[in-house]
Amino acid sequence: MKEKLYKKIREMNYTQLYEFSDEIRKYIYDVVYSNNGHLASNFGVVELTLALYRVFDPYEDVVIWDTSHQAYVHKLLTDRWDEFKTLRRYNGLSGFTNIKESEADKFGAGHAGTSISAALGFTLADKIKKRDRNIISIIGDGSFTCGMALESLNQLKFQKTNVKIILNSNDMAISPNVGTFSYLFSKIRMKKNYNSLKKLVKDILGDSELGQDLENMIKKMKEGFKHTVFSEPIGFFEDLGIKYIGPIDGHNIKEMELFLNYLKQYDEGPVVLHVLTKKGKGYINAENEPSKFHGVSKPIEKKGISHSKIVGNVLAYLSDENFLAFTGAMADGTGLNILKEKDPEKLIDMGITEASIVTAAAGLSLGGVLPVVDLYSTFMQRAFDSIIHDVALQNIPSLFLLDRAGLVGEDGPTHHGVFDISYLKLIPNIELITPLDGQDLANTIYTCVKKGIKKPTFIRFPKENYEKDKDYIIDNLEYTDLSWKKLKVSDSSAYVLSVGTISKNVLKATESMDINVIGVRTIKELDKKIIEEIKSKAEKIITVEEGSLSGGFGETIHSIFSNKEIYSFGIKDEFITHATREKQLELCGLDVKTLNIKIEQIINNYKRVV
Amino acid sequence: MKEKLYKKIREMNYTQLYEFSDEIRKYIYDVVYSNNGHLASNFGVVELTLALYRVFDPYEDVVIWDTSHQAYVHKLLTDRWDEFKTLRRYNGLSGFTNIKESEADKFGAGHAGTSISAALGFTLADKIKKRDRNIISIIGDGSFTCGMALESLNQLKFQKTNVKIILNSNDMAISPNVGTFSYLFSKIRMKKNYNSLKKLVKDILGDSELGQDLENMIKKMKEGFKHTVFSEPIGFFEDLGIKYIGPIDGHNIKEMELFLNYLKQYDEGPVVLHVLTKKGKGYINAENEPSKFHGVSKPIEKKGISHSKIVGNVLAYLSDENFLAFTGAMADGTGLNILKEKDPEKLIDMGITEASIVTAAAGLSLGGVLPVVDLYSTFMQRAFDSIIHDVALQNIPSLFLLDRAGLVGEDGPTHHGVFDISYLKLIPNIELITPLDGQDLANTIYTCVKKGIKKPTFIRFPKENYEKDKDYIIDNLEYTDLSWKKLKVSDSSAYVLSVGTISKNVLKATESMDINVIGVRTIKELDKKIIEEIKSKAEKIITVEEGSLSGGFGETIHSIFSNKEIYSFGIKDEFITHATREKQLELCGLDVKTLNIKIEQIINNYKRVV
Repeated sequence: MKEKLYKKIREMNYTQLYEFSDEIRKYIYDVVYSNNGHLASNFGVVELTLALYRVFDPYEDVVIWDTSHQAYVHKLLTDRWDEFKTLRRYNGLSGFTNIKESEADKFGAGHAGTSISAALGFTLADKIKKRDRNIISIIGDGSFTCGMALESLNQLKFQKTNVKIILNSNDMAISPNVGTFSYLFSKIRMKKNYNSLKKLVKDILGDSELGQDLENMIKKMKEGFKHTVFSEPIGFFEDLGIKYIGPIDGHNIKEMELFLNYLKQYDEGPVVLHVLTKKGKGYINAENEPSKFHGVSKPIEKKGISHSKIVGNVLAYLSDENFLAFTGAMADGTGLNILKEKDPEKLIDMGITEASIVTAAAGLSLGGVLPVVDLYSTFMQRAFDSIIHDVALQNIPSLFLLDRAGLVGEDGPTHHGVFDISYLKLIPNIELITPLDGQDLANTIYTCVKKGIKKPTFIRFPKENYEKDKDYIIDNLEYTDLSWKKLKVSDSSAYVLSVGTISKNVLKATESMDINVIGVRTIKELDKKIIEEIKSKAEKIITVEEGSLSGGFGETIHSIFSNKEIYSFGIKDEFITHATREKQLELCGLDVKTLNIKIEQIINNYKRVV
Repeated sequence: MKEKLYKKIREMNYTQLYEFSDEIRKYIYDVVYSNNGHLASNFGVVELTLALYRVFDPYEDVVIWDTSHQAYVHKLLTDRWDEFKTLRRYNGLSGFTNIKESEADKFGAGHAGTSISAALGFTLADKIKKRDRNIISIIGDGSFTCGMALESLNQLKFQKTNVKIILNSNDMAISPNVGTFSYLFSKIRMKKNYNSLKKLVKDILGDSELGQDLENMIKKMKEGFKHTVFSEPIGFFEDLGIKYIGPIDGHNIKEMELFLNYLKQYDEGPVVLHVLTKKGKGYINAENEPSKFHGVSKPIEKKGISHSKIVGNVLAYLSDENFLAFTGAMADGTGLNILKEKDPEKLIDMGITEASIVTAAAGLSLGGVLPVVDLYSTFMQRAFDSIIHDVALQNIPSLFLLDRAGLVGEDGPTHHGVFDISYLKLIPNIELITPLDGQDLANTIYTCVKKGIKKPTFIRFPKENYEKDKDYIIDNLEYTDLSWKKLKVSDSSAYVLSVGTISKNVLKATESMDINVIGVRTIKELDKKIIEEIKSKAEKIITVEEGSLSGGFGETIHSIFSNKEIYSFGIKDEFITHATREKQLELCGLDVKTLNIKIEQIINNYKRVV
């Protein structure tokens, strides 16, 4: 292990630092090639992280990486060089910061926009504890416009903090989802202060190393700030009482160090240092050596088509219908880029603003257009109150697609979509649909969009591939009545109620058994006819769902049949670690083998086995 | 009924309008005096609403009242003059806008900060439908800094909308919870443009009425805007691509009309009109006639102390301990003003930013200080993902107080705290405590703060009074072990498990019955010892909770005992209308009489009665 790397980098000269940057990029590339993960965002912050830890102490100070998908370099520099090979693997390093993983991980994340609120909390604690350390949030432009980030920006000055924000924005192409801010960010570069800042830095730094002369340099900067630059202040920050500095080159270590040192000394309130980085910086070198760097990751061997792409294709097929799709900075991940290619007017990307998206959808629906909101299940959690207060209470017809419902594999516990059945089931007026496979998903969306819906309607589907191809699915589109499906019929008095796509595993697990298997396509409403049949015929009921047992479908069934023998399989009351999706299903007892053994035991009259 | 009032006011001259303002204020005063409700905020917008509907059409245009507690005048002007007497009463008018109540209520609300997102949605629909109408959000300064509002502000220009925002801010005392914006708002008044704007308006308007000369006036305004005012633009809005106009006098109808007409013609993008109003404007007149206007509302006859004040007093008593309390613009409502009076340093009011508060609490806890987050249960919904992602997943000890859990009476469905058991039960790592009465609540907080906690801990309590007084409660503070309490012991094999404070009703309902009553103090974890006893002794189990049945405590009990006869009482899968709390309990079958009848039926062997 390369121990205390964050200290060793302080002894390197700039030539050595850039060489080390290359080494870091190569290492990250190799690991991401075999383990998957975030390449471009981490390539973008190599120099920034090096400069940061030459100035601040990752253990003594509080450095909070927003979202933390870009924290690989941070991990490498803070005692995890060797373990980094295990990135995103079961029992290995998390793909995000994790307070249980290292003392340098001051705050865990995965969802965007939380770092400034957390930084505010740390600051309030330090005030009480009379502790003096630097509290730093590193945040990208996509996260910066999340509601939580903006709310907390408004508190920083007011609560008398010195929180230091490093705003990392992409110098090449600012993502359109950033909203009006994108104009602001690009405008900033045009402003006079950008050039005068460049000049100032050049005057101060010249060719000299930092070091002994540092204090003098910072003094000069302060003077310079007073007189030359910022003739045109950035009003947004000024009005929030936050000093804005920048933008500076996020790949020039020396320049950044100068500014970070300035930041370290600055104690007159909250401050933003705007750093321009290039996503995937350094990847161009990799491209020159194709034999060494084949692609971003190993070719995926999975057959078929992802559920996300099914959604994209079906919506593209339906693009003449009266709907408008929304997503939150996830046009690619949700497959909606396929819709966008067909008709750019059909997709609104509002950036990472889930609650606003859901409420905007409510407005859209009242305006007479069907909204189709497509978010990952885990992110829909952020719109929980909008769903209750703006959509369900007003009983507004709107279609919600919950991508990556269930277990999501290597992204781990911040990203699982395992709570959605429970947190939606409790909301009045809604429908919650769980298609049995990719075709069923396609048919459900087709039916909802073509025939229209009368209620808020949620459709959940997993991060999994479906065996058929796109053309087959489109050719076979048909209306569905959403009734539960008898997947396996028998005279037995034992019934398995299996929810959505996990039915595939249940069918395999029960292949050799004499048992009824019902594919549950709706959690809300239940299929009354089949419920009646079960009431009269079933003695043993087994429920299987790829979701939280607490508050889930199993509990609903328990509450309906209080006098029957009922066994529920699902995800126990804990957060499931990162691993492959297959491993996670196994950990939760939802793999074919475990289901086979457990269901066998139940029908062979073992007592409680769950 | 004063029909088409919004049209009649267009025929009035300004003298008549101000007389009518007085009439409106008197009427609102009378109704609020007997029905309770929001007086000051509605008194503040009387002239604004009149001016608004002289210019815009409440049916043809889309006027969205943010939070909508200030929409009484709107209701009066839109065909509900007579029904207004039924405000907040069962089967009467809602205290908020409600799309089912009137076609003039374009969007319902109750929670803050949703109007701009909704306006965005309406605009997107109108674009598709090629419909031309004005879309207006009226929002106060407290809501304006909600994350959702800020997120959507960032979208307005980007999505090419002409959304018109009327920012209604209080000219007297800007609430400290507004954060740094409060400085901005007060700074604006100091700026040169404020005076030059005043002068411009005077020059244009003179003593003349609006009317035939209007177009000419607006032309003059446009010229004026070009040359005189806004030498100092408001950077925050400018950077978001939103035109800012103001501030103007929110009690001068003619002045407002001029600007609203300007707004109506303005089609170059989103625009904010900043209106300064005085909360409670006109109340001073009322105070001169004390015999007619006794107070804000009828003297409350309830005995004892509210659960909110118990919290405030206990925390004030414990103010030397290592904790920091947070609230969201609710220092009064939560009783935390009592803590603040004792020690202002112990309370952080972050405004209406629930998600940020919860995440800041997580940061505070990691910094070594116990956070005590006190929010209404209904508002905690807005922090659902922060609870999962920032608090529970990291298993951070923090104390959450859920005020107004259960049914809340006249505020109605936007404000009920009936979902919290269900939405918290599903989250791993947390503890959920339901004290049995006010003393139990006090003891629980006392125990958690003095002894410390190891997990995220939630305590829920209702909008109800407890019979003892403050001194008694403080004198009787003692540690509690949180075990379930046997409230009534019998040899019967029937057990009632009653959750939290509803136990009071259950005890009365079962007074004459031979039955066991257990006071359930924790939903998570369950009391294992008592569960074991029930397992071996109980044949019939009855659960009672003042919360949603779907996903609630009853379902947990069903899922534990699949072979017993179980009956669950709670709130069915629907939104409960506004009414008194007593009426609502009756509607939900949680009143003493209904519980008595139903439980009697169960122990007398009637079949399913629920």
